[in-house]
Amino acid sequence: MNLTKKSFINGQWITTTGETFASHNPVTNQAIEQFNSASVDDGKEAVLGAKLSFNAFKNLSGLERASLLEQIAVEIEALGDDLLNTANDETGLGLVRLTGERGRTCNQIRAFATMLKEGSWVRATIDTADANRTPPKPDLRRMLRPIGPVLVFPASNFPLAFGVLGGDTASALAAGNPVVIKAHPAHPATSELCMLAAERALIKCGIASNTIAMVQGSSLELAQSLVVNEAIQAIGFTGSLQAGRSIMDLAATRATPIPVYAEMGSTNPVFITPDALTKRGSDIANGLAASIAMGTGQFCTSPGVIVTLKNAQFEHQLTDAINSANQGYLLHPSIATGLKKSVSSLVNNDNVEVLAGTTLAEDSLKTPNSLIATSANAFLADDSLHEEAFGPISLLVNCQNEAELIAVADAIHGNLTATIHCQDEDALAQPLAQSLENHVGRLIVNGYPTGVEVCASQQHSGPYPACSSPATTSVGSDAISRFTRFIAYQDMPQALLPVELRDDNTLQVLRQVNNHVQNAAL
Amino acid sequence: MNLTKKSFINGQWITTTGETFASHNPVTNQAIEQFNSASVDDGKEAVLGAKLSFNAFKNLSGLERASLLEQIAVEIEALGDDLLNTANDETGLGLVRLTGERGRTCNQIRAFATMLKEGSWVRATIDTADANRTPPKPDLRRMLRPIGPVLVFPASNFPLAFGVLGGDTASALAAGNPVVIKAHPAHPATSELCMLAAERALIKCGIASNTIAMVQGSSLELAQSLVVNEAIQAIGFTGSLQAGRSIMDLAATRATPIPVYAEMGSTNPVFITPDALTKRGSDIANGLAASIAMGTGQFCTSPGVIVTLKNAQFEHQLTDAINSANQGYLLHPSIATGLKKSVSSLVNNDNVEVLAGTTLAEDSLKTPNSLIATSANAFLADDSLHEEAFGPISLLVNCQNEAELIAVADAIHGNLTATIHCQDEDALAQPLAQSLENHVGRLIVNGYPTGVEVCASQQHSGPYPACSSPATTSVGSDAISRFTRFIAYQDMPQALLPVELRDDNTLQVLRQVNNHVQNAAL
Repeated sequence: MNLTKKSFINGQWITTTGETFASHNPVTNQAIEQFNSASVDDGKEAVLGAKLSFNAFKNLSGLERASLLEQIAVEIEALGDDLLNTANDETGLGLVRLTGERGRTCNQIRAFATMLKEGSWVRATIDTADANRTPPKPDLRRMLRPIGPVLVFPASNFPLAFGVLGGDTASALAAGNPVVIKAHPAHPATSELCMLAAERALIKCGIASNTIAMVQGSSLELAQSLVVNEAIQAIGFTGSLQAGRSIMDLAATRATPIPVYAEMGSTNPVFITPDALTKRGSDIANGLAASIAMGTGQFCTSPGVIVTLKNAQFEHQLTDAINSANQGYLLHPSIATGLKKSVSSLVNNDNVEVLAGTTLAEDSLKTPNSLIATSANAFLADDSLHEEAFGPISLLVNCQNEAELIAVADAIHGNLTATIHCQDEDALAQPLAQSLENHVGRLIVNGYPTGVEVCASQQHSGPYPACSSPATTSVGSDAISRFTRFIAYQDMPQALLPVELRDDNTLQVLRQVNNHVQNAAL
Repeated sequence: MNLTKKSFINGQWITTTGETFASHNPVTNQAIEQFNSASVDDGKEAVLGAKLSFNAFKNLSGLERASLLEQIAVEIEALGDDLLNTANDETGLGLVRLTGERGRTCNQIRAFATMLKEGSWVRATIDTADANRTPPKPDLRRMLRPIGPVLVFPASNFPLAFGVLGGDTASALAAGNPVVIKAHPAHPATSELCMLAAERALIKCGIASNTIAMVQGSSLELAQSLVVNEAIQAIGFTGSLQAGRSIMDLAATRATPIPVYAEMGSTNPVFITPDALTKRGSDIANGLAASIAMGTGQFCTSPGVIVTLKNAQFEHQLTDAINSANQGYLLHPSIATGLKKSVSSLVNNDNVEVLAGTTLAEDSLKTPNSLIATSANAFLADDSLHEEAFGPISLLVNCQNEAELIAVADAIHGNLTATIHCQDEDALAQPLAQSLENHVGRLIVNGYPTGVEVCASQQHSGPYPACSSPATTSVGSDAISRFTRFIAYQDMPQALLPVELRDDNTLQVLRQVNNHVQNAAL
């Protein structure tokens, strides 16, 4: 397979700087090959191309945008084993996982296409005129519309599902926006293959090639120049709290501030009531160990905190299960560096006891699964124990009594998820749920936080520091809303209105007309 | 009428500082009376009270919150002429306008109550479980939920409709959030009367009095301390770009950044095609003059820019109409200072010609209506000509040809509204609409931007600098969404779910169940 090792900018594969960066194989822990870094000027050119494509792209019908998305999914699949093997070389995630992830990636792209074909997602609302009212009531019609070029920073931990053609790109395109993707430097070959698939789809659909751009490079300067580019209208990001907050802070300094949709750190605490511990402690220990080790702990929803009443038997069960769980590879040396820093801070904390793992290899990215323990009092007093350690590690918070369990629930920071393990008629379930929902985007009962269903009811978000924008979601069909804004049209002639707002409603979309939901023509 | 001249904090009328500030009568241009300023500690206490009230308030049913809102409207009306006379003393807006504004204020509060009673606004979505799928599909249910204490900065230009019990407070309460209001120092007596109405409603409904707090004062330190209070979860603001941006910037520095919904500066450009100018120039001139002078130009949607082909007859008609329009009073000396600064910058601009008004009195807040003119070239080259001048003044941008008209449309900054005056089959209507919708929240055809209908289809927002959050609206029923976030519940027992998500759907709310919209039980 021949790669250009360049960036796709304004419809062309180009490079200008002469600077390069290396891809890396986590299993061998060796560099693979060099890729060209785009310059700051290349980035400007990519954004300019996206800006110029906007007025044509926003006016494509939903059916035309759906065809583009479906063709993108076809082109991803047409990459065949090349894509899976390349992604495996760059991530070490294994072909089984990556095959599943490719399926999810194409499914979520096709799910947006299905939404576009159906059409009701634009939330059309119509209030008709009343000339006899004093003052006369105008005709007002409102729907979601695209916003302009969107900048996407893909994640390292999902090279496909949150990669170049992952959820952020798919939802931004679905909404009608050009997209500039700053590819993650941890998997540049995978990124180039995905961009090639997108280029082929654009050409086959007759859509301008500058509608999607992909910029390769590892420099902070390049990333920052894209964030402050005034033509960018919104940013999607998945990654660390440190990187996400720096993007939020930089975007806030722009002459024209824009929304940043950053999905960042989360410890996904799991609370186990005394009743559940007694009845199902062993099962829960095994379930937790599998969830912690899954994907080498590199999931946004990995359970990083477990809260229960102190119980020696459960500690032993959980420790055994974690010691028995499969060991995998961290994605990249920078993730190993981050995890070592987190582990070092934890094991050097006087109030923390090591139960399993924590000794990371110096010359390999293969990583033990770790379990450490602390007391509720220590957890409540020490903010550093609330921070995410990204990798296969979890902190067991031992409470003395039920009041401490509730106090810990009240004190958790913003998270993507919280989980309650409880029994039927469990008196602790209700107070735990009442407290935990204030801090999370998704509340799970008797399950595990890993495994994020892609559907309309999914909410993959949560209060800061989990996310920058707790009201929105980055997974599920409502992810499209992030890259839209409502526009109202007052007394607009039919011919000038978007089709979803015209009297004849040829698409038969559901609309709220004079406060009643219907799909009829007016 | 006896006023406490204090702040309502944690359910009590209190003051601690001894510092005071004066209310002001715009018609006499004299101070009226002194009010006590709350201290920074008072502000903290108000937020703490609101925080403590949250868990009880969020669990009230929609019917219970609707009763509170309806009682608030009743208590506002029960204030009778005292409220109207007090607001007139503090704003000079006149009893006719203020009577209308009181009606609008109570209508919008009752409209939220109606939404709560109907219940579908929570956008409930349900995806049911499928145990036979591999992996098993969980049961996921998602809806909008309240977020916690909301800080509201009311506007000076709508002492009732965007005052202490205006749209921001009403929508935040409707969503289930406690509210802390930093009353506008331009109308403290009006604010106290509104807070008294709210207190009476809370007591009659048996809801904790710390659910709503009102903090009086004019110090920057007090306002800033509220913005950075970590218990505040979102901020609503209506006012100047300078003040709004400073709140955005300060909120972005918080340990936990929060959304700021700021409605700020807008020039609401009105474009007139050559055809419309020929056929209806005189009518449009009269309509524009009335819109510019309305409320002494102190509307967010006042038409501050008029764009057309240069036409001497229209200039004369518009100048005459503006000279003939009623003159009113500016709301406050600080608004007069701001307008004088804007006018001075404009009349000293070499590329601007004065057609009417611009000479503001030194000792009175009664203000002439003003019209100035410039060329399209000057407008395109000079960002200062795009800035809002808050008051009864408009800038006529004279174009040489249709290409310049389109170029000006492409160049306008973010605005709440843009308006197109055109004729049937007007070839310019489509390109103008395509360009202008990229910059505004509401696009109007053959009307005037003042007059903001309160309904589901209203979008009172727009790209920065008009608003901080162009995707949301501060007027209309969707204003409630700003103070919510989605929460998903996974495999949650029926008894722990909010009623809107339970199988039996006793409220019969519209829900999307497995991708189909219905109001049936499961």
